[in-house]
Amino acid sequence: MSKPYVVGIDIGGTNTVFGIVDARGQVLASNSIKTRKHSNINDYINELHHELKKLMEATSTVDKIHGIGIGAPNGNFFTGMIEDGVNLPWPTPIPLAKLVSDKFGIPVAVTNDANAAAIGEMTYGVARGLKDFIMITLGTGVGSGIVINGQLVYGHDGFAGELGHVISKRNNGRLCGCGRTGCLETYCSATGVARTAREFLEIRHEPSLLRNIPVDEITSKDVYDAAIAGDPIAKEIFEYTGEILGEALADFTVFSAPEAFVLFGGLAKAGDLILKPVRNAMEKNMLSIWKGKVKILLSELKEADAAILGASALGWEAKYLDATPAASAPILPA
Amino acid sequence: MSKPYVVGIDIGGTNTVFGIVDARGQVLASNSIKTRKHSNINDYINELHHELKKLMEATSTVDKIHGIGIGAPNGNFFTGMIEDGVNLPWPTPIPLAKLVSDKFGIPVAVTNDANAAAIGEMTYGVARGLKDFIMITLGTGVGSGIVINGQLVYGHDGFAGELGHVISKRNNGRLCGCGRTGCLETYCSATGVARTAREFLEIRHEPSLLRNIPVDEITSKDVYDAAIAGDPIAKEIFEYTGEILGEALADFTVFSAPEAFVLFGGLAKAGDLILKPVRNAMEKNMLSIWKGKVKILLSELKEADAAILGASALGWEAKYLDATPAASAPILPA
Repeated sequence: MSKPYVVGIDIGGTNTVFGIVDARGQVLASNSIKTRKHSNINDYINELHHELKKLMEATSTVDKIHGIGIGAPNGNFFTGMIEDGVNLPWPTPIPLAKLVSDKFGIPVAVTNDANAAAIGEMTYGVARGLKDFIMITLGTGVGSGIVINGQLVYGHDGFAGELGHVISKRNNGRLCGCGRTGCLETYCSATGVARTAREFLEIRHEPSLLRNIPVDEITSKDVYDAAIAGDPIAKEIFEYTGEILGEALADFTVFSAPEAFVLFGGLAKAGDLILKPVRNAMEKNMLSIWKGKVKILLSELKEADAAILGASALGWEAKYLDATPAASAPILPA
Repeated sequence: MSKPYVVGIDIGGTNTVFGIVDARGQVLASNSIKTRKHSNINDYINELHHELKKLMEATSTVDKIHGIGIGAPNGNFFTGMIEDGVNLPWPTPIPLAKLVSDKFGIPVAVTNDANAAAIGEMTYGVARGLKDFIMITLGTGVGSGIVINGQLVYGHDGFAGELGHVISKRNNGRLCGCGRTGCLETYCSATGVARTAREFLEIRHEPSLLRNIPVDEITSKDVYDAAIAGDPIAKEIFEYTGEILGEALADFTVFSAPEAFVLFGGLAKAGDLILKPVRNAMEKNMLSIWKGKVKILLSELKEADAAILGASALGWEAKYLDATPAASAPILPA
């Protein structure tokens, strides 16, 4: 293989992390820049290029990059664009694949961060060898990447797999950032756990370690720390969260009959505090043909590298797209 | 093509219908036998063979059958078996593909009826040219066949696409045949509509044409007739049913971002009575990126032929399976 390396770029709301990765998933070198430093997208891409060029030179991989994979909010695999409705400093839609491949002279593939995580897990992580699994990312929101028969599900428009937005509570559900109410992510994200904490502390009257923290400042990390310290309300918050997630996983199973769910992100690190209620609720709500058959796995990718690895895995699939900034209709890959 | 015909067999709880189909979806000849006539599966297969042989001779297609496709309850594409838990007169699991291909000397593929319907719709019906759609069959139960990127979704074990068993009502839901409560099919099947009618008539006090029918004998057809005659309660029953289905379709969309849902079965024939509330509820509950983008289509297959056509379309994919009746583990297709 004359081009045995890929570049992974993960564009987050605050930081953009990137690195050079080999076929075995070793990160040769990585770095980051501030996503919001440049109000002009071209300046941002120039800085990204400048920094990545340095990494390529340091690792002697300048002419050996097979492709660049980018995970970005609302990144669309089919169009190579960052679509509308994201919290980034540039006007959308952004023809990201086109801009980056023009600058680097290397093929680029784009998808959202949860899809990138699923591809990363399948290529380098705990989902190696699995052909049917669903990645659930439990971060500020709840994201997902669905793999069926070894292929990521993009749907007819490139946006499939928004499982954070299935409705968990049909009535009196929490208001979601998407404008609707009751979405899974209003309960099972880090933000959702903090909201649950505020609700529980308001309704309940037992003492709790969480009462030492100003109620508007409680984070899911605080709830975790309190639960580890034995706080009953904090433990109940994880049980409540896990139960809603487990119910949702049972519903997802009837769709694609996955062999496993792979959990990733801050909440997944709460270990048995969250896993036990998730497993219990999933089994309790599971259609009988799947009882005891669907695994819940934790991501095995090192957190520091996971975003880069996920995006980089997509680099192996990168092709040049014939997209232009002015294009209004979705452009299918060649 | 030296073998330009396929056989489609649809095994229902009462009747088994079968026919010979050409590549354009023309049914050359068809017939049916009683599913429950023989308590021994071999006698049943012998009768099926006898009757199909007559059809093949009459149409001069004896040596021109490419494959046999069978739609059967709990039919598993991977194993070729009818799995446990179905209302058929023979002990399960039934190694159906093996039994039929041994008898006929023709490759056989098996799946469940809703999956067969999806393949039929994609091959011969309204879903021709669609690569991402979800077939919803509204019959005694609610079945589904999910097509992603032009391929039917079987999942890791062959059972994917049981969308009638997502939970529509998490609390105080109706008891389902699956043993759980609140499943979509307890509301949106023909049976579900009849249950809704009984609930509405008990709770409400307005006059209704439906009160002329003994409450335990009301069918979805009665509700349809009353609605067509202008009965307000009957119309409300369809609105209630359609709303629950529309909410579910909005949730399904976040999974695979289909281009369309294709509705089939008795309830779908209620036309705008059910379609209007389904469309309204789907749009109202849709995540904004898909608002106005997902079509709801009605099956175009002639009802008399639909079951045969659906199963027959699977015949084009039929391969010999190396399955034995005693096999306990799933056997993957060669």
